[in-house]
Amino acid sequence: MNQKLGRASIRPEEAVYILNSASIVGTKEGEGPLGLLFDKVGADDLFGCKSWEEAESTLQKEAVGMALEKAEVEPEEVTFVIAGDLLGQSMATSFGLSSYQIPLFGVYGACSTCGESLTVGVMSIAGGFAEKIVCVTSSHFASAEKEFRFPLEYGNQRPLSASWTVTGSGAFVLGGAVEKGRKARGRITGMTVGKIVDYGLKDSMNMGACMAPAAASTLEQHFIDFSGQPEDYDKIITGDLGKVGQRVLIDLLREKGYDISEQHMDCGLEIFDGESQDTHAGGSGCGCSAVTLSAYILKQLEERNWKKVLFMPTGALLSKTSFNEGMSVPGIAHAVVIESP
Amino acid sequence: MNQKLGRASIRPEEAVYILNSASIVGTKEGEGPLGLLFDKVGADDLFGCKSWEEAESTLQKEAVGMALEKAEVEPEEVTFVIAGDLLGQSMATSFGLSSYQIPLFGVYGACSTCGESLTVGVMSIAGGFAEKIVCVTSSHFASAEKEFRFPLEYGNQRPLSASWTVTGSGAFVLGGAVEKGRKARGRITGMTVGKIVDYGLKDSMNMGACMAPAAASTLEQHFIDFSGQPEDYDKIITGDLGKVGQRVLIDLLREKGYDISEQHMDCGLEIFDGESQDTHAGGSGCGCSAVTLSAYILKQLEERNWKKVLFMPTGALLSKTSFNEGMSVPGIAHAVVIESP
Repeated sequence: MNQKLGRASIRPEEAVYILNSASIVGTKEGEGPLGLLFDKVGADDLFGCKSWEEAESTLQKEAVGMALEKAEVEPEEVTFVIAGDLLGQSMATSFGLSSYQIPLFGVYGACSTCGESLTVGVMSIAGGFAEKIVCVTSSHFASAEKEFRFPLEYGNQRPLSASWTVTGSGAFVLGGAVEKGRKARGRITGMTVGKIVDYGLKDSMNMGACMAPAAASTLEQHFIDFSGQPEDYDKIITGDLGKVGQRVLIDLLREKGYDISEQHMDCGLEIFDGESQDTHAGGSGCGCSAVTLSAYILKQLEERNWKKVLFMPTGALLSKTSFNEGMSVPGIAHAVVIESP
Repeated sequence: MNQKLGRASIRPEEAVYILNSASIVGTKEGEGPLGLLFDKVGADDLFGCKSWEEAESTLQKEAVGMALEKAEVEPEEVTFVIAGDLLGQSMATSFGLSSYQIPLFGVYGACSTCGESLTVGVMSIAGGFAEKIVCVTSSHFASAEKEFRFPLEYGNQRPLSASWTVTGSGAFVLGGAVEKGRKARGRITGMTVGKIVDYGLKDSMNMGACMAPAAASTLEQHFIDFSGQPEDYDKIITGDLGKVGQRVLIDLLREKGYDISEQHMDCGLEIFDGESQDTHAGGSGCGCSAVTLSAYILKQLEERNWKKVLFMPTGALLSKTSFNEGMSVPGIAHAVVIESP
């Protein structure tokens, strides 16, 4: 069985289905343009917990619970859960998912993690290693500010290139086939795995520019591996490049001979109204692409407003320590082809 | 193709080979009982770098470089690298591997990461998604102390139950078949994926006890899924349970009806001489199991002193933040069956 395509891509012999999915977000996301589409909006951003980290764990737990319920799948039927977040040592996953008792693959790709988890999930099913898979990722504005930047109490000023970490978690139940009488939300038919791309940028308040070269690299490789063109997709959707990163990405790809200005969409630009919500460059975080995929993108595919999209979450590979030691902020992006069910 | 076995296990239809591997360690590991077996021992633990984190990145870079050279494989031939470490946001991987330009899956399972990376690697190859894979993990005593406990300058006292994080990195080149005239170092024929197990222990200075219940859980599931017994293996090898964890594991499994006291071996107990090297409970860290596998375990399998082992790295899922917030230390363990080539 050869399911490898070109240098860095995978084309499963049989499509893998997103059987169902769920999203939970914080108050600010609930007030944004996609607010009415999320399955659950928290009354406050602590979600009944004592710390921001516990709150983020609760997000993952609730997202997985809702996704399983919507898919009518019991935790015992899930072969593996593939999960990650932005906290050091993936704490939201470790404390959010233990009660389900599902064998776990922890993954880390910064804000690209949703794409990575879907890719490992599709490999697990298309390779015959698993029957059903849950993929989940999360981020939380307050735990991320604390983890990467400053304590909230410090009230640091945010430049216009900064993004706003989304408080939210999206979970996806994958399966190899759709049982009779059930509907799926989407069909995954290909993936391109990204590599680390480092242009030497060091500004953690401009992550869009740091990640755009990685997005361009993965996208170019995707078009090469699939012998494809931007026109193959109704939308080419990045995770959280924001305003600045979007411009850089479109410019970089134009230099490589691809014009994606018609198709490009960015989850970070969809989830907030930058003007009225004061989120500057846009939304970001592992949760940003995940909740937008669940609430908005899959809905468009279900309703056949779009037939085929390329979903490509983008990650900035920095830590508090690497930033403080003066290191650059490399990027990575993983692309997933999702079609109408 | 059904390569799933039981609740949580995988049995690839065709074995995946460890074509070659490499290990690099720090000075203390070089002075230990396995010292002469490692491919490279650093002259000092900064490895020519300015920070401990950069040093750990260098470990991953060198381990991968040596493993590729020994396997006579070019980076362009490697479909994916599957990598992780203990630092927040997997920084050793992000800064160590970018120069190879190989598509990356970042994984996190604390000190179980070596087992997780091998499992994802085997799935990639056995599922037909990849031709050659590199798996690499690392840890560094000084970066880990800083990340999880206290600054070295503080000189905190270590209780006898504490382990000593290994400075080292092990890299493995996997392939689906061995080319004519070449030798492989081992054959991977099965895996059991662990789940998060939380007994509520909170002592980050006794990680052996925190991880032992996870090791017992994965091992019991392994015996159930493979209809197996401890006698099936020449050795059952945990990653870094150390003295305390070893006793807990053997006791827990006895309660479940399995006696592994004859077969059990722990990488953390092999790598240091606890008496003369003052390492207390034993070695630990992502690097501990990885370098012991490369330098010692695979050598025994090559020389057919052992025919079949169960290699099961164990991870403690804590972070500085989770510890400071009073959370418990859950564990996870992933088991990999490795046979003589």
